[in-house]
Amino acid sequence: MTTNNPTNSVTVLGLGLMGRALAGALRRDGHATTVWNRTAAKADDLVAEGATLAASIRDAVSANTLIIACVSDYEALRDLLDPVGDLLDGRVLVNLTSGTSAEARETATWAAGHGAAYLDGAIMAVPAAIGTAEAVLLHSGPREAFDQHEPVLRSLGTTTHLGEDHGLSSLYDVAVLGLMWSILNGFLQGAALLGAAGVPASAFTELAKVSATTVAGWLPAYAEQIDQGAYPAFDSTIDTHLGAMAHLVDESEALGVSAELPAFIKALGERAVAAGRGGDGYAGLIDQFRKPSEVGA
Amino acid sequence: MTTNNPTNSVTVLGLGLMGRALAGALRRDGHATTVWNRTAAKADDLVAEGATLAASIRDAVSANTLIIACVSDYEALRDLLDPVGDLLDGRVLVNLTSGTSAEARETATWAAGHGAAYLDGAIMAVPAAIGTAEAVLLHSGPREAFDQHEPVLRSLGTTTHLGEDHGLSSLYDVAVLGLMWSILNGFLQGAALLGAAGVPASAFTELAKVSATTVAGWLPAYAEQIDQGAYPAFDSTIDTHLGAMAHLVDESEALGVSAELPAFIKALGERAVAAGRGGDGYAGLIDQFRKPSEVGA
Repeated sequence: MTTNNPTNSVTVLGLGLMGRALAGALRRDGHATTVWNRTAAKADDLVAEGATLAASIRDAVSANTLIIACVSDYEALRDLLDPVGDLLDGRVLVNLTSGTSAEARETATWAAGHGAAYLDGAIMAVPAAIGTAEAVLLHSGPREAFDQHEPVLRSLGTTTHLGEDHGLSSLYDVAVLGLMWSILNGFLQGAALLGAAGVPASAFTELAKVSATTVAGWLPAYAEQIDQGAYPAFDSTIDTHLGAMAHLVDESEALGVSAELPAFIKALGERAVAAGRGGDGYAGLIDQFRKPSEVGA
Repeated sequence: MTTNNPTNSVTVLGLGLMGRALAGALRRDGHATTVWNRTAAKADDLVAEGATLAASIRDAVSANTLIIACVSDYEALRDLLDPVGDLLDGRVLVNLTSGTSAEARETATWAAGHGAAYLDGAIMAVPAAIGTAEAVLLHSGPREAFDQHEPVLRSLGTTTHLGEDHGLSSLYDVAVLGLMWSILNGFLQGAALLGAAGVPASAFTELAKVSATTVAGWLPAYAEQIDQGAYPAFDSTIDTHLGAMAHLVDESEALGVSAELPAFIKALGERAVAAGRGGDGYAGLIDQFRKPSEVGA
């Protein structure tokens, strides 16, 4: 990745696996990088490569206008920055710590109280991918602060500004993770089912991959239906799906593997049919996800 | 699609939307195609294009060695073929009707009793895709019969022989469908969540597509772990996932959308941790899918 402004300097707070990857990518891309971590030894490799280790959190925050934080959780962030709140006026805090949208909004209010601009962020990547286009970083908060520091932020990967609501990056993050876990669970269900019939998981992989990629290609059309509130079936109706959902339950039970996920899938289909959506396409199930849980968590 | 043996002739039983697509693709690819349907008028377009309408089910079965059936369900198939069982000796029945693995195996036994070779099949495609490489057709049963008639079957799409067990095509079918529904449900959960925060589903699509495609790319490595029975974490451990799963539940509850799918995802993670798999990668959850449901369906 290249930047138009390689002289932009930056401070990175928190040098866990991800923090070290962030600082390394920034430094390699030509940004003067100051780092700080509670356990200073974590900075050794970065310092050997040219990063500057701040002697204290005060020095770290004072060193640059742009502060990127990636610590264990939001509580750790506040514990770290509360004592140096007086230094934050006029700085931009980009917080890549994992948390909820509520925590992001609270932290934005706290930062504003200290005169700092605040961008919340979520990292959709493993540490090894940081600094490559494959690493997707989601940001939310003031657009102006994002635009100003995007030349630095883009050294970390593919950056996106989602909107002014500070909570958006956390929301998109869990939405994507929910999709990810759903895909993996769907694959594991199939692997368990086929495994019980003596088929190795690896024999299922290619078909699963092709199918997942195909289904991913349907999402834009489904999203359009959801936004328009009309769900005409492209091919199969929910009624038709329901017949096949029953097969999934039956096969799972017959083979003695867990039928929980199949039963959940089928129950959703049944509720949509009961709600009069049997003739709709699959996107008509959105109502079942919008309404609060029928069963307590 | 081309074939090495364009003179192979074939009979197609059942002319619903899918049956007509099958017969049309076979005829267009140069196979002399005899068709039969309880309501003969469904054959009009095919006959106009050059297919032959059999006057009776007896004539239809007698016309060719290779019989492809695609009717509403297995009961309808048996109702149709029981009266002409005496004609089946030496023929090959390829049954593309949707059903369960148990029905496939029963039908194989029944066909064997009449001296017919039997291939069960599942169609992973909508009717419009039949005859293109995008249509995936799964077959299971005797390899010899598959190899012999593959030059005809491949006119329908991308054909695969899964194994000798007649139940395999139904099992792969529901395994893939389970994955498909899981992906769509994961997307709908995210769309509902973001929707409650004022984000249109279409704004989620691109990220969802990229993420789903990325996750699909992980499946071969997870499958290898499942087959080897060891699940070292590539990046995140189940313990780490569990923290983020709790965020998905919290965000869903806070925004007043259904938390059922999030709670299911989290419960699986919790059980895997309780079973001592917290330090494993996600594939370590396979045990949760292998064991019979904890909660009755």
